[in-house]
Amino acid sequence: MNAKVPAPELSVDRWFNTNDHPTLSTLHGEVVVIEAFQMLCPGCVTHGLPQAQRIAATFGHDLVVLGLHTVFEHHAAMQPVSLEAFLHEYRVTFPVGVDRHDGADPIPITMRDYALRGTPSLIAIDRSGSIRLHAFGQIDDLAVGATLARLIDEPR
Amino acid sequence: MNAKVPAPELSVDRWFNTNDHPTLSTLHGEVVVIEAFQMLCPGCVTHGLPQAQRIAATFGHDLVVLGLHTVFEHHAAMQPVSLEAFLHEYRVTFPVGVDRHDGADPIPITMRDYALRGTPSLIAIDRSGSIRLHAFGQIDDLAVGATLARLIDEPR
Amino acid sequence: MNAKVPAPELSVDRWFNTNDHPTLSTLHGEVVVIEAFQMLCPGCVTHGLPQAQRIAATFGHDLVVLGLHTVFEHHAAMQPVSLEAFLHEYRVTFPVGVDRHDGADPIPITMRDYALRGTPSLIAIDRSGSIRLHAFGQIDDLAVGATLARLIDEPR
Amino acid sequence: MNAKVPAPELSVDRWFNTNDHPTLSTLHGEVVVIEAFQMLCPGCVTHGLPQAQRIAATFGHDLVVLGLHTVFEHHAAMQPVSLEAFLHEYRVTFPVGVDRHDGADPIPITMRDYALRGTPSLIAIDRSGSIRLHAFGQIDDLAVGATLARLIDEPR
Repeated sequence: MNAKVPAPELSVDRWFNTNDHPTLSTLHGEVVVIEAFQMLCPGCVTHGLPQAQRIAATFGHDLVVLGLHTVFEHHAAMQPVSLEAFLHEYRVTFPVGVDRHDGADPIPITMRDYALRGTPSLIAIDRSGSIRLHAFGQIDDLAVGATLARLIDEPR
Repeated sequence: MNAKVPAPELSVDRWFNTNDHPTLSTLHGEVVVIEAFQMLCPGCVTHGLPQAQRIAATFGHDLVVLGLHTVFEHHAAMQPVSLEAFLHEYRVTFPVGVDRHDGADPIPITMRDYALRGTPSLIAIDRSGSIRLHAFGQIDDLAVGATLARLIDEPR
Repeated sequence: MNAKVPAPELSVDRWFNTNDHPTLSTLHGEVVVIEAFQMLCPGCVTHGLPQAQRIAATFGHDLVVLGLHTVFEHHAAMQPVSLEAFLHEYRVTFPVGVDRHDGADPIPITMRDYALRGTPSLIAIDRSGSIRLHAFGQIDDLAVGATLARLIDEPR
Repeated sequence: MNAKVPAPELSVDRWFNTNDHPTLSTLHGEVVVIEAFQMLCPGCVTHGLPQAQRIAATFGHDLVVLGLHTVFEHHAAMQPVSLEAFLHEYRVTFPVGVDRHDGADPIPITMRDYALRGTPSLIAIDRSGSIRLHAFGQIDDLAVGATLARLIDEPR
């Protein structure tokens, strides 16, 4: 969690909840939190997305929360039209990008570039663009809060 | 809740989790519990469907639990291909039917025939084919357990 | 759960939340639910007592809910003065009796007579005075609701 | 929450879970977290103490967690003999002190010196002995984790 691995750029087809097309390069200098999820993953619905919403509510002025819809199974079931309704019904208001697929590879590009083990995954990127948190599954709020405070407090 | 209103027949396009095509007429003589839900309705995911699964686990030998996917909003988002993945991911194993639409009416036929107020809704039908429980929203397990025991104990 | 074992009379030193001194003989003809607990038992606080409160709220007109403080450990820690404050703080409003001790036996008399395995325990007694439910630990509301409805529906 | 108010010394009659008699002066240089609670306060049992246990589990190497039993009501109900059994049953393993009373004042001394509004209250003291967090009621883990990380990272 402490090694400074450069964060690969996001490969996103389409964004919801924003008119911009956020990229890590334009967000350089900011702390960026990425919640990688699938809309039909129960652990994402129960734990990952509510945690990301709490992060946005608690630290929203000091960092950027992005969702990433990393569909690696049931592809036909989780198309953007379904994701859009899901975000509406679950009141997800931070920007959410659809991870891009590379031909027939079931694993989308950003998920592959970050070597995610599954969903939900929580990633935090520091102001210099390095990955500082890379966690799969359930991770508790006290530890996440500590990590994010430290990244926020680092100089730009 | 106690009036004996005859239960309208189900209008279902397609069933999941069964090779049969269940109808109320073939189930006459059985106690039938119907969980009406939408896969992108948070209250259904948090409360309604887990309760229906508990009903099936507790009373499965003495009654029939059916799910009914009553899509009345975000229709394009909740097509059968998405429902199928949803049922797999959330381990819903009782039969689930897709409520049929009548032309352009956004409210599906069975939902309209039962005058459901929304999702989740829980319906219980007695051995004679009458509606005996018709509840919208969250309803607690003690009361549901009591109602179902009484219907189970009625003579065929 | 179905054998008709006669319920032993309660041996209670003192009652809270009532000016009466309830006994099973005076309650003959009623369905009686007994929640046996200790005020410092975490499972009682988290599960048993809230369930007893839900039972009282749901079925209160049709049965009698009694609490029984069956102290079998940490006796000095759970004296009536502490129990009284506990009942106030946790908003327990049904009658609660203090199970009587017989000399130096750490197990109180009613607990011994009912052969309770520990706390929380839930007991249901039918209108004829027989034990019909005798459960230790966590027992789910659907099953409890079904059992209680059936006892309520039996003739006096 | 950011003003540097000097933390008053603790006035404790008796400690549990330690053979020492911790004081803020001997802990000078450490980050100290104090969970002020009453054993019969439902919010303390549900929220405050579990949070303090998570703090000890997450940050235990980097700060000191102390419990403070600040009894200001039901005094006879929450004597040390009852507290001791409570700590055992709820698996509270960090040191817990009994806040001292000054004659007939129902509010114990440390509670009064810290101007606590009630229980549960969470206090954090920095390495220089100043109060940096002083919160009554429920406070979420993300914010607590952030605050504690910052205090831990301050120079001794």
